[in-house]
Amino acid sequence: MTQPAQPHIHPIDVILHKRDGLDLTDAEIQSFIRAVVDHAAGSQTFSDEVSDAQIAAFLMAVFERGLDHRELATLTTAMRFSGETFDAAPLNTFTVDKHSTGGVGDKTSLLIAPTLGAAGLAHPTPASIPGICVPMISGRSLGHTGGTLDKLETIPGFNTQLNLSQLLDILKKCGAALIGQTPTLVPADRILYALRDHTGTVESPFLICASIMSKKLAESLNALVLDVKVGSGAFMPTYEKSKFLAELMVRTGEASGTRTVALLTSMDEPLGRFSGNWIEAWECVDIMRGHRHPLSADLIELSNILSGWMLHLAGRADTPQAGAALADEILRTGEAYKAWLKIVAAQGGDVAIFEDPAAFHQPAATRTIPAPQSGYLASMDCKQVGWAIQRLGAGRARPGDPVSAHAGIGMHAKLGDKLESGQPLATLFAEDAALLDEPEAMLRETFQIATSPPKLHPLIREVVAEKFS
Amino acid sequence: MTQPAQPHIHPIDVILHKRDGLDLTDAEIQSFIRAVVDHAAGSQTFSDEVSDAQIAAFLMAVFERGLDHRELATLTTAMRFSGETFDAAPLNTFTVDKHSTGGVGDKTSLLIAPTLGAAGLAHPTPASIPGICVPMISGRSLGHTGGTLDKLETIPGFNTQLNLSQLLDILKKCGAALIGQTPTLVPADRILYALRDHTGTVESPFLICASIMSKKLAESLNALVLDVKVGSGAFMPTYEKSKFLAELMVRTGEASGTRTVALLTSMDEPLGRFSGNWIEAWECVDIMRGHRHPLSADLIELSNILSGWMLHLAGRADTPQAGAALADEILRTGEAYKAWLKIVAAQGGDVAIFEDPAAFHQPAATRTIPAPQSGYLASMDCKQVGWAIQRLGAGRARPGDPVSAHAGIGMHAKLGDKLESGQPLATLFAEDAALLDEPEAMLRETFQIATSPPKLHPLIREVVAEKFS
Repeated sequence: MTQPAQPHIHPIDVILHKRDGLDLTDAEIQSFIRAVVDHAAGSQTFSDEVSDAQIAAFLMAVFERGLDHRELATLTTAMRFSGETFDAAPLNTFTVDKHSTGGVGDKTSLLIAPTLGAAGLAHPTPASIPGICVPMISGRSLGHTGGTLDKLETIPGFNTQLNLSQLLDILKKCGAALIGQTPTLVPADRILYALRDHTGTVESPFLICASIMSKKLAESLNALVLDVKVGSGAFMPTYEKSKFLAELMVRTGEASGTRTVALLTSMDEPLGRFSGNWIEAWECVDIMRGHRHPLSADLIELSNILSGWMLHLAGRADTPQAGAALADEILRTGEAYKAWLKIVAAQGGDVAIFEDPAAFHQPAATRTIPAPQSGYLASMDCKQVGWAIQRLGAGRARPGDPVSAHAGIGMHAKLGDKLESGQPLATLFAEDAALLDEPEAMLRETFQIATSPPKLHPLIREVVAEKFS
Repeated sequence: MTQPAQPHIHPIDVILHKRDGLDLTDAEIQSFIRAVVDHAAGSQTFSDEVSDAQIAAFLMAVFERGLDHRELATLTTAMRFSGETFDAAPLNTFTVDKHSTGGVGDKTSLLIAPTLGAAGLAHPTPASIPGICVPMISGRSLGHTGGTLDKLETIPGFNTQLNLSQLLDILKKCGAALIGQTPTLVPADRILYALRDHTGTVESPFLICASIMSKKLAESLNALVLDVKVGSGAFMPTYEKSKFLAELMVRTGEASGTRTVALLTSMDEPLGRFSGNWIEAWECVDIMRGHRHPLSADLIELSNILSGWMLHLAGRADTPQAGAALADEILRTGEAYKAWLKIVAAQGGDVAIFEDPAAFHQPAATRTIPAPQSGYLASMDCKQVGWAIQRLGAGRARPGDPVSAHAGIGMHAKLGDKLESGQPLATLFAEDAALLDEPEAMLRETFQIATSPPKLHPLIREVVAEKFS
């Protein structure tokens, strides 16, 4: 029983319009997001008359009804500007970032940031091409997926909680930085995400897009490369839904003037050799120091391809392929490792630890699962592998829980590898032997051995880069 | 990122299932409603882990996805038993009630309760037919519709706030009672309704059905007659939606063992002569004292038809038509008036006021709108008429606001009546002349005079009574 609309936009009217499947006006979306932020800030302005229950109703209505491209762009922009934004303009560089939708053993950020940093530092900029900077604002482990910040914070002294002026200083020195979300950036997303998690409205592609893109666009990027996972370890349940999300994000990025490319990449098994926290940093350091373990091949390939796209968009390579070759060279020559040491030191980390990474790996308990029979490693539920890693102590059941630096798993085989019965398949690490049993059972259950080689997906399934009309 | 289900049903899982369009199990619905009530009670039991935001998300998911017949019956039953219930079984009577979805000038309850009460009192019960009792638990004015309690409370001393044992006492004496919702009956509906009003989830036929039927079925009825309004003054916006709601309610009532009939009735203009609070009580007293003003004809007809269905279902008449004739006889003979005086006195009301009802009508300001031209009264937006009455002071903008006893309107013509230019069309009543201007403009705008007679809808549009397979 709503009376005729009045000039001020009431949250309830925005809810009613979306509930009934109408397109929201820009003013309605902007007013609602302003009310969300005011409400959280305890403001007494006119627009703060929105409750958690109303925000929840709005989120569910958006979940059920969706948003068109204009609405999504407007929502993303309203969230992007809901707090402070970061702008590397004072550095006069080409600002580029990478974002992954989250996977198991996905540690490409630890290779890509120093690779791009090195490209900006070691390859002097011709007058026509701006330098590069990579303000990588990352997240923490949640659910079955790992988090870049948790991996970095295993390095003694490494500080991810920097403010925007500290971020600018490190970018000036290193060309790249790896920090956590600041309290001042995109407050609307923090409020909405907490309520989405609480009200069953997480899995909307529209809300996921607005959440990811508002945070990335708040970095005032010239270009953005998105790694959208597909497969059993991906957050999105089907290939089609991952692709739909990728298209939404590319379109939303382009609509705001940021060159945006999305790669749909396979997450059918953990990426690389190790999955956990310190062991993932160790694997990357090992690669940057010139060691290329065969089990790390997919990790190196994906990192180079993503770096290649970033270098291409930044004008450092004529094609993404040439960019990937340049990235590989930067890794092989040790330039990336130099940049890594510089970034770690600039962020307060103790680089001495990298001299003997294996010595720092101190899980109290380990256990190796052997292949139960001879044959080919055919498949696994990669999400279940991620949950096993979380239960080992490497991940968290809820935000704020502590994580173990040393827990996790090391794989001894990749999908398609031929195994003899009894040959090591995976090794589990934990702080306490009692924590090994459940994850071991979860892993034993999910690893499937077959008598013939499985059909495998390529690492890169598809590139979403075109403009949508 | 929900982990595998555990034996206890978490509210979030119920939200997720409905969000995704799945059918909820009975256990899920029952558990959610229990959590809603526990939450409001501040209980610390395991099931109280639900927040307003989660309830809002659930309501919006139900709004968007709907409920099938089993889910709706289960939800209604869970709400019905969320607190105390009333049961007239100690009286060994046939318990029957009437409910209207709300209209303008709809005062049939004030005629039906005494008519049915008189039928139980004045017509001695044969051994094979139980007596009748009518535990009429009514509501207040909200929005453009009037409320039975507000009308009754204009009678000095009339107490609508009785507990269930007081209700039983009055039913024993009078066969009918007119009281307000008690705090102990159907607490789940109070919580859900407040959140629906706040989160834009009022207009769901499923939630409306559960709200109405949970409250009516909590009276442990043998039969229920529903007056579902259609037309411009109805709450539901189209005939089809009113009919859909009627079918849901009939099916839900029958599923719980209560004989349920719904009449779709016209609400194209105010019912009867007066719309307000005291003036509606006055109109009914006038009728019960034997005066039949021509402008009250539709009110008398509808009241008799509804009473007729109730008498028929209670076994007092072979057909609804015979029941209506009996009801008319009870009105004409003054038996209803006797029962009315008994009910009013039993509920503490001062019956002396009925000796000169006109003298008690004391609006400080009145104004008569004349017909702007000659012709037939062709149409009006009856909802706008309802809002004009609310603005005059007879209704409330929000729950808890006071209402005026004397504000309202008196019509001088019905749809289809021929008018001469300048002839009185409606008279407005208010406590203050300043309150007359806006309602006058609203009414002048909405009354349409045409040169030829309009096509009118019959009072009873359709009866929904059959069993659905």
